[in-house]
Amino acid sequence: MRLTNSIVKEPMVIGHEYAGVVEEIGNEVTHLAVGDNVTLEPGVSCAHCSHCKEGRYNLCDEMKCFATPPIHGCLANFVVHPASLCFKLPENVSLEEGAMCEPLSVGVHACRRAGAGPHTKVLIMGSGPIGLVTLMAAKEFGFPRVAVVDVDENRLKMAQELGAHEVGCVSTRIEDVEKEVLEIQQKMAAGIDITFDCAGLEKTMRTALKATRSGGEVCLVGMGHVEMKVPSTAAAAREVDILGLHRYRNTYQLCIDLISSGRINVKPLITHRFRFSQEDVVKAFNVSAMGGSAIKVMFNI
Amino acid sequence: MRLTNSIVKEPMVIGHEYAGVVEEIGNEVTHLAVGDNVTLEPGVSCAHCSHCKEGRYNLCDEMKCFATPPIHGCLANFVVHPASLCFKLPENVSLEEGAMCEPLSVGVHACRRAGAGPHTKVLIMGSGPIGLVTLMAAKEFGFPRVAVVDVDENRLKMAQELGAHEVGCVSTRIEDVEKEVLEIQQKMAAGIDITFDCAGLEKTMRTALKATRSGGEVCLVGMGHVEMKVPSTAAAAREVDILGLHRYRNTYQLCIDLISSGRINVKPLITHRFRFSQEDVVKAFNVSAMGGSAIKVMFNI
Amino acid sequence: MRLTNSIVKEPMVIGHEYAGVVEEIGNEVTHLAVGDNVTLEPGVSCAHCSHCKEGRYNLCDEMKCFATPPIHGCLANFVVHPASLCFKLPENVSLEEGAMCEPLSVGVHACRRAGAGPHTKVLIMGSGPIGLVTLMAAKEFGFPRVAVVDVDENRLKMAQELGAHEVGCVSTRIEDVEKEVLEIQQKMAAGIDITFDCAGLEKTMRTALKATRSGGEVCLVGMGHVEMKVPSTAAAAREVDILGLHRYRNTYQLCIDLISSGRINVKPLITHRFRFSQEDVVKAFNVSAMGGSAIKVMFNI
Amino acid sequence: MRLTNSIVKEPMVIGHEYAGVVEEIGNEVTHLAVGDNVTLEPGVSCAHCSHCKEGRYNLCDEMKCFATPPIHGCLANFVVHPASLCFKLPENVSLEEGAMCEPLSVGVHACRRAGAGPHTKVLIMGSGPIGLVTLMAAKEFGFPRVAVVDVDENRLKMAQELGAHEVGCVSTRIEDVEKEVLEIQQKMAAGIDITFDCAGLEKTMRTALKATRSGGEVCLVGMGHVEMKVPSTAAAAREVDILGLHRYRNTYQLCIDLISSGRINVKPLITHRFRFSQEDVVKAFNVSAMGGSAIKVMFNI
Repeated sequence: MRLTNSIVKEPMVIGHEYAGVVEEIGNEVTHLAVGDNVTLEPGVSCAHCSHCKEGRYNLCDEMKCFATPPIHGCLANFVVHPASLCFKLPENVSLEEGAMCEPLSVGVHACRRAGAGPHTKVLIMGSGPIGLVTLMAAKEFGFPRVAVVDVDENRLKMAQELGAHEVGCVSTRIEDVEKEVLEIQQKMAAGIDITFDCAGLEKTMRTALKATRSGGEVCLVGMGHVEMKVPSTAAAAREVDILGLHRYRNTYQLCIDLISSGRINVKPLITHRFRFSQEDVVKAFNVSAMGGSAIKVMFNI
Repeated sequence: MRLTNSIVKEPMVIGHEYAGVVEEIGNEVTHLAVGDNVTLEPGVSCAHCSHCKEGRYNLCDEMKCFATPPIHGCLANFVVHPASLCFKLPENVSLEEGAMCEPLSVGVHACRRAGAGPHTKVLIMGSGPIGLVTLMAAKEFGFPRVAVVDVDENRLKMAQELGAHEVGCVSTRIEDVEKEVLEIQQKMAAGIDITFDCAGLEKTMRTALKATRSGGEVCLVGMGHVEMKVPSTAAAAREVDILGLHRYRNTYQLCIDLISSGRINVKPLITHRFRFSQEDVVKAFNVSAMGGSAIKVMFNI
Repeated sequence: MRLTNSIVKEPMVIGHEYAGVVEEIGNEVTHLAVGDNVTLEPGVSCAHCSHCKEGRYNLCDEMKCFATPPIHGCLANFVVHPASLCFKLPENVSLEEGAMCEPLSVGVHACRRAGAGPHTKVLIMGSGPIGLVTLMAAKEFGFPRVAVVDVDENRLKMAQELGAHEVGCVSTRIEDVEKEVLEIQQKMAAGIDITFDCAGLEKTMRTALKATRSGGEVCLVGMGHVEMKVPSTAAAAREVDILGLHRYRNTYQLCIDLISSGRINVKPLITHRFRFSQEDVVKAFNVSAMGGSAIKVMFNI
Repeated sequence: MRLTNSIVKEPMVIGHEYAGVVEEIGNEVTHLAVGDNVTLEPGVSCAHCSHCKEGRYNLCDEMKCFATPPIHGCLANFVVHPASLCFKLPENVSLEEGAMCEPLSVGVHACRRAGAGPHTKVLIMGSGPIGLVTLMAAKEFGFPRVAVVDVDENRLKMAQELGAHEVGCVSTRIEDVEKEVLEIQQKMAAGIDITFDCAGLEKTMRTALKATRSGGEVCLVGMGHVEMKVPSTAAAAREVDILGLHRYRNTYQLCIDLISSGRINVKPLITHRFRFSQEDVVKAFNVSAMGGSAIKVMFNI
């Protein structure tokens, strides 16, 4: 329902990864002061439905989120936002790093949903921005061994620099799944407990379902294909569960702590920076659209 | 791996739903006596691998199970089996009912994996034997509202007699999914927390994924289609998880208790009985193969 | 912290078990209409702290609850309350039954926290109002066998009428613990998985910790003694965990469903009814204070 | 039951922290070879009771464990042990480190039972050997902030060297609890999610119950006092749960991985080494009994 509703019918401001300086606060706000640096969790939930009351507010049907139609995004000079969703940044966390709490939250939520811990062997399908934040989070949840596979050697290099224990280059051909599964399993030399499919393609999902050990989990993080033909039955018969993800919940303070304590360094993910001028905005979107070495492109407003 | 291994290469005795009388016991067996009525959990796990030690012995790679090739089944006059897998039947539970602990275990394991409780609204896809035992278990786990859908009105009647709150007849056409999902949701007049797909077909799975509320679960119990094309992404984006099932674990004593206390009555599921003579065996398999009103066909050996 | 704060410094209206008729609603309220019968969940949480966001709103530090000082209770002709905490009663649930959702919620929350299910053997210490609602909830969560013990034979009779499988009369003497534990365990003829201590006295807690099987749980529901000397170490060495309870969360709709569907009948717990006149109020409190056969004393306002 | 049974009635060999070289193997053993270095998980469970089948084999009533009366320990030149409990050490893990898997397992099991993760703030009461392995495990489970308190400044120094974020010296006086709780909470500057009481004394438990935030957990790891008078009710009313521990389960392979990968360094805990001669054995026990700087005293057999 959410997905089908997400149709842009009118011009809309985009942007949902954001940090800024507090300009004004309400009377009852006590945890913030004017001038504080803050990062903003973009989704405002209703706080009263059953999902909200059960602690799964990310599934709230009344969620109003920056840049989810028809709500405007936060790529703007000023935004108004509930104080409870504004998280104060400590001195050693920059606004840029603060904005990175949003993508990092996806990785953290994925690890949490999958019930990860120090004993868990992990495979990550895809080494794009979401694959990389999932890798970062995974290492911090204590995974002893993380493998990352991708079709692009350059992106795998980045994964290796960020701490992947194993990386492997794979094809886009469905017929290679069996062979690649064997290669991945040999590389890991241990059962794969959790696979995060950060691409969400028919091929990556087939690989994920076959590579994961009996009783393990496949977490569908990326969403490349809307429909996919997969061997669901064989996976189910080995109690390999498929977990979904809708954004994140209760992650922002943890992300700030992880960055502030130095346990996660998000800076390598910010590959380009632009001013918020008309000329630069166009350049920025061109860089971002080209892909290549660009991971995260940041505006300094 | 298990599934692909399950190829019958030589003639094999079948049978894995079984109860009988103890003829002989080992020296160290203290919980059984010669003459006791017992039902037999069919799978013998290794007890030492990581799955066994973590309490998920049904996933043991070394499992030796009645009628799973190349292990012979228990459709025989005598079988030898570990005492720890022989469960004594109380006086008020017949051998026939004891044998029904096997299919009932599937329903119990499904409810347990799905984390069911008194608040859970349930949809069951399919009203065959597995659908019916899942219905029985579901009601005992305390579900307030269970709907069952099937393509066969007769089978739905049985579901209704066994306590389904709602039943609905559906088609086999993929293009009816959207319409049927709406009808089911209106009938339930509440979000569906868990859907048990006891058919395991592309169409039932599509229905299941769409009908279940955000944050709910689809439990793949039946295994009709090996591969299926499904809208995985839309389901994942609503955190609708897909759980698999491999047989059951730690269910037999509970099933006996449920039958003995009268909380579950498995007798209506036993629709035909045969002696274990050559002539009757042929008749029995013919009845079973025809489907129709036959649910469980039982041999009295 | 909450407990030490609960000191009445000024005259305060009491009352937190409540149902009534909607007199007026706000503009944005869509699930209620004037004239609806509703029951009121008494505690208003902040909706924004970490407890609220994680789905444990009952632990909210900013909770404002009827009759928790300095907040007035609801024993009044009119009260104002957030619409999201007003639950509409179906036609077949009376106002009296609606008011019973409050105590029943305690039993439901206890069963949920303890992770109860159809396989769980349960012991309930104490057969007062809280013991009885816990018994009712326990049976609905599917417990196959529930024993209730108390010092009062009359209260045990009520437990038996409400469906306890076993009841037993115990003393108040610490020195009887060992003997009584043995008696209880023999009566249950099976390990006790969960003990709900609905008295919360040193003696009941000692019994609970010893009677529960290794790996089981003791849920401290009643709160008779502030401090108690208990054999914590021996219990911990058997992984018998002690769980606490603070009121309840997300229970009201389930309680209404349980009552409306006839699965739980709360009427036997309402033993006395009074009008809300000056004279009757005094009588009512006298009846309640005397104990004896009074379980719940209800005002019809 | 276990505890009361643990009475030494005859002379008994002690020792349950052990590693050695494989001298002989059975016919069916495939994961070990003569000459392999192995560490031994000391407890042999029955593999067939309900605890074993549910994955909680550490609670098995039939457990036979090195040095638990009447079973002899492993302080001997040769021992016979089931192959499934012998874990091969990789080349970079010494026998000494292998033997340390036993105490480290206690810390790992404590962190697992408490459901620890990267967001969890932790307090450890006691800086003896068990406190220190719990600290090591806690940091590896991803705790952002661990405080350790003890009565001994020297032991706290060791905790600080091993990575405690905060340390604090406390008294043995019950009347200091309130004051010390405040000091600890201020030091942590955040709610304490989990307290591991590695001393198990009335005073440490009182501190633990009061210092932990609402909804948090106290894990009773140490077992100093058999009985203790504690404010159970106030803790329960804030849903602060008390979790017990019986040894550990499924920890050995993880401990080996943690040591082998360099993520945990157990060497600083081995403060003294002795040969297995008559003279040295006496010295070793004297050193160990004196306490002081001795943490773990190791025999090289």
